[in-house]
Amino acid sequence: MNLPFDYERLTLGEFGGTTPIPSDFDSARVVILPIPLDRTTSYVPGTRTGPHEILIASSHMELWDEETGTDVHGIGICTLPEMEFPFATLEEVMQEIRRVATELVTREKFPVILGGEHSITAPVVAALAARHRGLSVLQIDAHADLRDSYMGTPHNHACAMRRSLEYGHVTQVGIRSMSAEEADAAPGLNTTIFYDAMMRQDPQWIDRVVDSLTDPVYITIDVDGLDPAIMPSTGTPEPGGLSWYEMLALLRAAISRRTVVACDVVELSPIPGLVAPNFLCAKLIYKVLTYRFGTLSP
Amino acid sequence: MNLPFDYERLTLGEFGGTTPIPSDFDSARVVILPIPLDRTTSYVPGTRTGPHEILIASSHMELWDEETGTDVHGIGICTLPEMEFPFATLEEVMQEIRRVATELVTREKFPVILGGEHSITAPVVAALAARHRGLSVLQIDAHADLRDSYMGTPHNHACAMRRSLEYGHVTQVGIRSMSAEEADAAPGLNTTIFYDAMMRQDPQWIDRVVDSLTDPVYITIDVDGLDPAIMPSTGTPEPGGLSWYEMLALLRAAISRRTVVACDVVELSPIPGLVAPNFLCAKLIYKVLTYRFGTLSP
Amino acid sequence: MNLPFDYERLTLGEFGGTTPIPSDFDSARVVILPIPLDRTTSYVPGTRTGPHEILIASSHMELWDEETGTDVHGIGICTLPEMEFPFATLEEVMQEIRRVATELVTREKFPVILGGEHSITAPVVAALAARHRGLSVLQIDAHADLRDSYMGTPHNHACAMRRSLEYGHVTQVGIRSMSAEEADAAPGLNTTIFYDAMMRQDPQWIDRVVDSLTDPVYITIDVDGLDPAIMPSTGTPEPGGLSWYEMLALLRAAISRRTVVACDVVELSPIPGLVAPNFLCAKLIYKVLTYRFGTLSP
Amino acid sequence: MNLPFDYERLTLGEFGGTTPIPSDFDSARVVILPIPLDRTTSYVPGTRTGPHEILIASSHMELWDEETGTDVHGIGICTLPEMEFPFATLEEVMQEIRRVATELVTREKFPVILGGEHSITAPVVAALAARHRGLSVLQIDAHADLRDSYMGTPHNHACAMRRSLEYGHVTQVGIRSMSAEEADAAPGLNTTIFYDAMMRQDPQWIDRVVDSLTDPVYITIDVDGLDPAIMPSTGTPEPGGLSWYEMLALLRAAISRRTVVACDVVELSPIPGLVAPNFLCAKLIYKVLTYRFGTLSP
Amino acid sequence: MNLPFDYERLTLGEFGGTTPIPSDFDSARVVILPIPLDRTTSYVPGTRTGPHEILIASSHMELWDEETGTDVHGIGICTLPEMEFPFATLEEVMQEIRRVATELVTREKFPVILGGEHSITAPVVAALAARHRGLSVLQIDAHADLRDSYMGTPHNHACAMRRSLEYGHVTQVGIRSMSAEEADAAPGLNTTIFYDAMMRQDPQWIDRVVDSLTDPVYITIDVDGLDPAIMPSTGTPEPGGLSWYEMLALLRAAISRRTVVACDVVELSPIPGLVAPNFLCAKLIYKVLTYRFGTLSP
Amino acid sequence: MNLPFDYERLTLGEFGGTTPIPSDFDSARVVILPIPLDRTTSYVPGTRTGPHEILIASSHMELWDEETGTDVHGIGICTLPEMEFPFATLEEVMQEIRRVATELVTREKFPVILGGEHSITAPVVAALAARHRGLSVLQIDAHADLRDSYMGTPHNHACAMRRSLEYGHVTQVGIRSMSAEEADAAPGLNTTIFYDAMMRQDPQWIDRVVDSLTDPVYITIDVDGLDPAIMPSTGTPEPGGLSWYEMLALLRAAISRRTVVACDVVELSPIPGLVAPNFLCAKLIYKVLTYRFGTLSP
Repeated sequence: MNLPFDYERLTLGEFGGTTPIPSDFDSARVVILPIPLDRTTSYVPGTRTGPHEILIASSHMELWDEETGTDVHGIGICTLPEMEFPFATLEEVMQEIRRVATELVTREKFPVILGGEHSITAPVVAALAARHRGLSVLQIDAHADLRDSYMGTPHNHACAMRRSLEYGHVTQVGIRSMSAEEADAAPGLNTTIFYDAMMRQDPQWIDRVVDSLTDPVYITIDVDGLDPAIMPSTGTPEPGGLSWYEMLALLRAAISRRTVVACDVVELSPIPGLVAPNFLCAKLIYKVLTYRFGTLSP
Repeated sequence: MNLPFDYERLTLGEFGGTTPIPSDFDSARVVILPIPLDRTTSYVPGTRTGPHEILIASSHMELWDEETGTDVHGIGICTLPEMEFPFATLEEVMQEIRRVATELVTREKFPVILGGEHSITAPVVAALAARHRGLSVLQIDAHADLRDSYMGTPHNHACAMRRSLEYGHVTQVGIRSMSAEEADAAPGLNTTIFYDAMMRQDPQWIDRVVDSLTDPVYITIDVDGLDPAIMPSTGTPEPGGLSWYEMLALLRAAISRRTVVACDVVELSPIPGLVAPNFLCAKLIYKVLTYRFGTLSP
Repeated sequence: MNLPFDYERLTLGEFGGTTPIPSDFDSARVVILPIPLDRTTSYVPGTRTGPHEILIASSHMELWDEETGTDVHGIGICTLPEMEFPFATLEEVMQEIRRVATELVTREKFPVILGGEHSITAPVVAALAARHRGLSVLQIDAHADLRDSYMGTPHNHACAMRRSLEYGHVTQVGIRSMSAEEADAAPGLNTTIFYDAMMRQDPQWIDRVVDSLTDPVYITIDVDGLDPAIMPSTGTPEPGGLSWYEMLALLRAAISRRTVVACDVVELSPIPGLVAPNFLCAKLIYKVLTYRFGTLSP
Repeated sequence: MNLPFDYERLTLGEFGGTTPIPSDFDSARVVILPIPLDRTTSYVPGTRTGPHEILIASSHMELWDEETGTDVHGIGICTLPEMEFPFATLEEVMQEIRRVATELVTREKFPVILGGEHSITAPVVAALAARHRGLSVLQIDAHADLRDSYMGTPHNHACAMRRSLEYGHVTQVGIRSMSAEEADAAPGLNTTIFYDAMMRQDPQWIDRVVDSLTDPVYITIDVDGLDPAIMPSTGTPEPGGLSWYEMLALLRAAISRRTVVACDVVELSPIPGLVAPNFLCAKLIYKVLTYRFGTLSP
Repeated sequence: MNLPFDYERLTLGEFGGTTPIPSDFDSARVVILPIPLDRTTSYVPGTRTGPHEILIASSHMELWDEETGTDVHGIGICTLPEMEFPFATLEEVMQEIRRVATELVTREKFPVILGGEHSITAPVVAALAARHRGLSVLQIDAHADLRDSYMGTPHNHACAMRRSLEYGHVTQVGIRSMSAEEADAAPGLNTTIFYDAMMRQDPQWIDRVVDSLTDPVYITIDVDGLDPAIMPSTGTPEPGGLSWYEMLALLRAAISRRTVVACDVVELSPIPGLVAPNFLCAKLIYKVLTYRFGTLSP
Repeated sequence: MNLPFDYERLTLGEFGGTTPIPSDFDSARVVILPIPLDRTTSYVPGTRTGPHEILIASSHMELWDEETGTDVHGIGICTLPEMEFPFATLEEVMQEIRRVATELVTREKFPVILGGEHSITAPVVAALAARHRGLSVLQIDAHADLRDSYMGTPHNHACAMRRSLEYGHVTQVGIRSMSAEEADAAPGLNTTIFYDAMMRQDPQWIDRVVDSLTDPVYITIDVDGLDPAIMPSTGTPEPGGLSWYEMLALLRAAISRRTVVACDVVELSPIPGLVAPNFLCAKLIYKVLTYRFGTLSP
């Protein structure tokens, strides 16, 4: 906002806060798109405020990354307003998300989608796949999300990856909950599954995950893929899951060996009074950006 | 459950708890039907656990009513399991609710519906109106809910009463929030509105409310009609609203002067750790039953 | 933000949300200035997130006011970013608030300040008093805030009104907590005190409050002036206090009989998970604007 | 604690905090005795931390009372450590409470008991009745607590007043929940019941309450006698109940027309993050002391 | 419940929810018995709602176990109503629990007890030991619970294992808190203690634990044996403790090498708003059943 | 307090509770000093209640340490009242803390400081350094806290260690967040930094940390140095960090190889309803005392 006078200020809703100055859309390399869709989540309500709380938390992060010795924010990070959906059907919601994601992709932006429930992933993958031949998807998640339909709709979050693999191969990491139907269907689908229990017994699991990915790669992080110890704020918090440093190691490996073209972080259901999980999501996104663009920063 | 042995027990999910013994369906005069629908609520998530928390609270009420000197539970109160909705569209959900409500009505039960969001009211009113010619609706609510369509659907909770008045006259009590579009439409609709601010200046408002009701009457209580002081646990808690004793006086007058044939209590969004609003809902329902059937009790 | 494409959106941090379209600074008659200062609050921490939560809540209000039959938002309401304070001392903070408030006043805006703790009132009153000769202050508050110094500083929130009355007469309403020192000092100060207990026994108290005000008037609302039943979210929630309708009646009377030139709402300490008090603050501000400017709206 | 050096300090657990200086036992006229007994409470757990939270809150009160123009703390208020119960049975607990209460009574102290559950009242009343012939009890409560036995013990909180009336007449105020058994038994017991619903229709109820009391008087305040709007922090929060100013008016009348010799405040179950009800209890106690001893203060 | 009509439904209080159909008592191999006893817990109140929250959570689990490739629910799981205790003394409570447990044992059921506090374990062990000669107990716990008497009773939860070892050898795992008295007594008792700190330095601890167990085995899981990172919802959350996968490995080893005949999960004190620990308990129980009966499932 | 009668009691605010008997100041070897300073903390409010909650939690610990087989409380632990600050400036606060710390040091006490925010460390270090030539500081922390000035003051918690290293070398452990300015400045400062990410790859990091320390040593533990899984209750909870057993191993090594002369635990911001982090702090302090003085205990 242009003011005829000035003062030290903080604008709500900018990833990374307002210091020094957030990028405008045209000059930004990275665009944060919040999509607080919350229609089908089952146990604990509340992904609707997820993007909002991630943005609030992000303004309290340091922008310097001590691991890589870089400050990636200089590449330009622009945060868009939250999408709203005055549409009747999930089908139309999915089309609108795909349209907006396509707008970003055609302008050469690196989209970071903030969910909202996992069903938003499929239309974003569709937009990316239309642009990038051979796109594969790296999914970190407790749940396979491979149901063909659930609660009467193919767009339920429990179907998120069944929909996504219409556009490319999916590698699923941290899986520790699925239905008998999904277990039956999985061998016939274009997916590679890394079960959480088995990852614990395979020191090479990260390499094997990256080996399974074609290039380029879309990363979708359902926060319930993480250990509930550090991520209780999600609808169905399954015990087990990735630690913070396992997650970072996986992201570092995937980004260094493949071209990552976009990512999303979904299914954060903030718990009132508990900010640590929200802060973790903000920092996780900044780590992705640092690994992806850190060497480009001035 | 039949056990080959016995012990003192509490079964979750029976209105009024398990003492002395809950009624079976056939012998019950009153049937509690929980419908935890939660799709379109806008500000605060959480009507999904509303029916559940009301039932938990109800097991801690005294069954004796000191105001009337009666214990109404002897007429038979049967609590049904929660409805679930494996359907694709709100349209189908509404049809299913109407079907189940019709089953109750045709068996001469007095249905008490526990929401869930306000959109469940219209199909229940439809079922009642099909049975009871001349049915009118008494709505206690902060919001007029008269939008013709909202967020792309005619079944949004913001349209609950616009849908309901397709089946009969509606008297709206406690209204203190509406859109310009609703204000424009209201004069042409089959409703009588008692604005909360004006009720404060009219000592006769209760009589005038009942005068406006044809016979018989369906009562729908959106809990946000109450003062947020006693009902903070709702999606859009508008300041102002009815006190506990105003609510009782209104219910007592309506039930004594009209034949009330069913009711619902909707839009409770329980706040973790705060049981008072849940308990209030349980007692409110028991007061309705006491006023309605207290003289019939053994 | 200008985008080369469009979508339905919600921007965090606009009072009243994004529908239809928030005003820009130049065309706005009303300017919302969030000042989340939180240095000296004593019992419960947390006024820092007060402005933020009021803005979030405000996007869920209806913009139509059913009491007056107006929609005041058309006069132009512009929300500024939150002030931040990279200064060493409270003295400097106070100077900066006064400077920014003066910028607003000289541009003929109607400032609505969102606190933050009560100490922000004095510098805003200073800015107003420099512009409006004869300015008086209407304070709604549980505490007299008349200490000359507290915790070692004259800028503590417990001194807010002692500082403010350096610029004009103060009428204090809802007072129900003060120290012996304040009680001793009060008779010698330029204040009129309406004790909460005595207001309960005087049906004319509102008229008498307005009679005591010179013209024009600055209104400062410490939310703890309200009954903790509807306002538990504050640092020292004193039992007793104004109801919602008493507050509205007072504001309506003051605005109709005096020229109100600015106002603030301070000391909201949001409780995680409890939105009703935040929503009340949003609606309270909209009521002030409606009473003040409702007849001007298109 | 005697230190060889000094500093500004706050000691946890002193009623009214540490300013100026809490009384020692011998010079104190009033003795605060915390009894955090919590064995039989049924719906919401948590009276165990009630006394503790009241003491914390009390250190944030002003010690000046603006209603009476007095500062009563000068009469001497001494806070004892919390009682603990390394005993096997409730019977023994009751005996120990009676013994300690007797110690206070024989030393001419004015005991203020902080519960804990309501079952602690009976042994304190026993101690007082042994000293003061003709003692009656003024009980403010939502529940009659007249069961002869509950959950297998005569010392359950649901039997608190049935036990107490073994020692004198009881006047019960604010009653709005009782069992059929209690309703049957009440006419044969030495009690006078003021039902909450009927109090609403009788402008003289306070006078009639005081008329029913013999002299001297013990006051027991179950916090659930208050409206859950201002007192949600209790095990079974019954809608209805006394407002803050009704409570004060009743206490003022009782204390001015009878000799009050002790009191208790019981059944506070603090809700984490919600301090208003705790603060109300602290202030309620200070009001009792002000009305009782205010004219004696220096 | 038999209804003359049908609909999709969810019944509160069935372990694993209502899909496909819960077993009746006679055909069930496993019987879930909730015992929400909550009398002596010391720091944080609230084990009373533990069983209830575990059952709610269990209806959101997948019934397929991806680790073993089985769906064990087909063996028949029947959930009994909660036990209530209208008895005067803990002694009588213990006798009643033993009686009900004996009813289950004599009918060849596999009992899964949901606590409630740890004191419920001893009478269940007594019932099992009467049936199974040579029974030993595997206890996972932060506390030794070896006091002979505490707070005046031998049935306090701090004495749970001292009581249990009257019926057989106890192996204690995860111990990291005990009193000097317990440390003195331990060498003379029929227990084997695996201290948590030492387990961290012994890669063979699981084998050694199982070696110490005679056959058959009763497993008692005090949830505070787990790391507070994943189990903050307990009365005295001691830092350290078992991870999720350590717990699973221990259970897998014990069940594969010994005949486990019953188990309990106790001391869950649900924290309002935090479902992850409740969900963990539900899944933990399902893992025990999967390891125990998975190969038997159809 | 001396009473003319006796009973079993618990006094709030004694570290370790009241069993057997807390030490008086003169005979105590260890002195606990609570300093609930809370002025500059940035994201989540609330260090003000940190010391208080640690003391409450400490009364629920066992005093026996099963790891070392000792009960250290016999050396004498005395808990002082909370410091309060009726001073105008942070500068004066810092001087007062230094003065009080000096009083303890000159009396040969082992001070344990409970924060409050991290800015209290510098004046305590100053007091220690004046007494102990060659003092170095072991800091466990997520943040380097090496800013020279922040928010306009050199006493902000973000500057805590920049101030402290004016008095001696600082070894920083667990660091995973810093600004570009701090990264630039660090090489020129008298610090050794162990970054959290690098510690994960260096099995010898504990030895190397202790090697870097001169003798004697002051230990400052910012609780955010711990993994947010076990320590969510802090202002800026950075993912990663030390586990409980890593923390104990570091403390054990440092205390066995160096002379530790004092310590502090700071930045605990208790979350209402979540006691595990508070309890962890209490036990952490008792572990420090056990490692330091355990062999001296009777």
